[in-house]
Amino acid sequence: MGGRTGILFIMSAPSGAGKTSLARELGDNFPDLRHSVSYTTRPPRQGEQEGRDYYFVSAARFREMVKRGELAEWAEVHGERYGTSRLRLGATLEQGLDVLLTIDVQGARQLKAVYPEAVTVFLLPPSLAELKERLRQRGDPPAEVRRRLETARREVAELAGYDYVIVNDTFKEAVEALRAIILAERCRRARALPRLDGLLKEVEGHGTDHR
Amino acid sequence: MGGRTGILFIMSAPSGAGKTSLARELGDNFPDLRHSVSYTTRPPRQGEQEGRDYYFVSAARFREMVKRGELAEWAEVHGERYGTSRLRLGATLEQGLDVLLTIDVQGARQLKAVYPEAVTVFLLPPSLAELKERLRQRGDPPAEVRRRLETARREVAELAGYDYVIVNDTFKEAVEALRAIILAERCRRARALPRLDGLLKEVEGHGTDHR
Repeated sequence: MGGRTGILFIMSAPSGAGKTSLARELGDNFPDLRHSVSYTTRPPRQGEQEGRDYYFVSAARFREMVKRGELAEWAEVHGERYGTSRLRLGATLEQGLDVLLTIDVQGARQLKAVYPEAVTVFLLPPSLAELKERLRQRGDPPAEVRRRLETARREVAELAGYDYVIVNDTFKEAVEALRAIILAERCRRARALPRLDGLLKEVEGHGTDHR
Repeated sequence: MGGRTGILFIMSAPSGAGKTSLARELGDNFPDLRHSVSYTTRPPRQGEQEGRDYYFVSAARFREMVKRGELAEWAEVHGERYGTSRLRLGATLEQGLDVLLTIDVQGARQLKAVYPEAVTVFLLPPSLAELKERLRQRGDPPAEVRRRLETARREVAELAGYDYVIVNDTFKEAVEALRAIILAERCRRARALPRLDGLLKEVEGHGTDHR
């Protein structure tokens, strides 16, 4: 990787748009892409694993982390707190590994302020009707569905701040789009240049030979 | 596609870096991607087809096209002229179709001036030594190989003006990278928004219901 700093990919989406499954699928696709795992005060849902989906911590421990400045960002969503460890994230990027971070719009804004070169992706459900259906099928109670739809409405209004928009029409296409964004961003000239050292030196050398 | 204008992808590469095979492969991958076919005064090489690889025209006809302003760009490379039809290109983009145009650095610069929103990709050989080998294997005579290497050296120096850089290490990876760039650029927020009309209206409507 020739000393390249990792790229931070930030993905936001309304609850139920499919960001967790998408991020997990991508992790399997890219062995060199790290999935940033957030800290949260909310209790684990069925099937969620400590350290894979979240680090589950008490409200007291979370307050302590905030106080000590250990979080690159944190936010309260639906009454629970979520945050990203500054040290973990920084160390991974320093190693030249790319990181995919799925986070709500508040967190995305804070992170973008700290990491202005981050690449931001907004994942959208095909429609609010479809989103409602997905939340219901997931088993969220009606009041929760209403609250999440209201949040979704507010969040979608913020998509103007994002670099890319993926519509999660079919899971397969959404995976392919996110994969493409990651591959393409790795080819951005400014990021690809460090890997071209050899060729560029060769070009200069060749030029000198002929003068 | 909801009235979206097509994206113009401009790809440049030194002779022998593999741009023609790559563009052809991509065309097969994306039925909705048009490959812009240039006009040229150079004679067809073995296996090249009129209308697929180039439109082969006489020097007199080419001069006439230039005089009538029918070309969006044109350039002389290795003593032969190459140009892009303004009408053909404009009509395709207007239809909302994306266009892939493989062109030398001079032509790319002219086109970028006319289409500032074009996405530019520079395809590099892994090394000049490798490029020399490929040109030899293609059967180019030694003097031609030397001339093309000299041009390659000058062209590579211009890659700072390009959005993306692909190193053609293996053909398969280069195809995948170019494919990713096309898919990712289609997800760029500004381009994706017209397709989101329905959802955005739904979001506004939903908001109004609750006020």
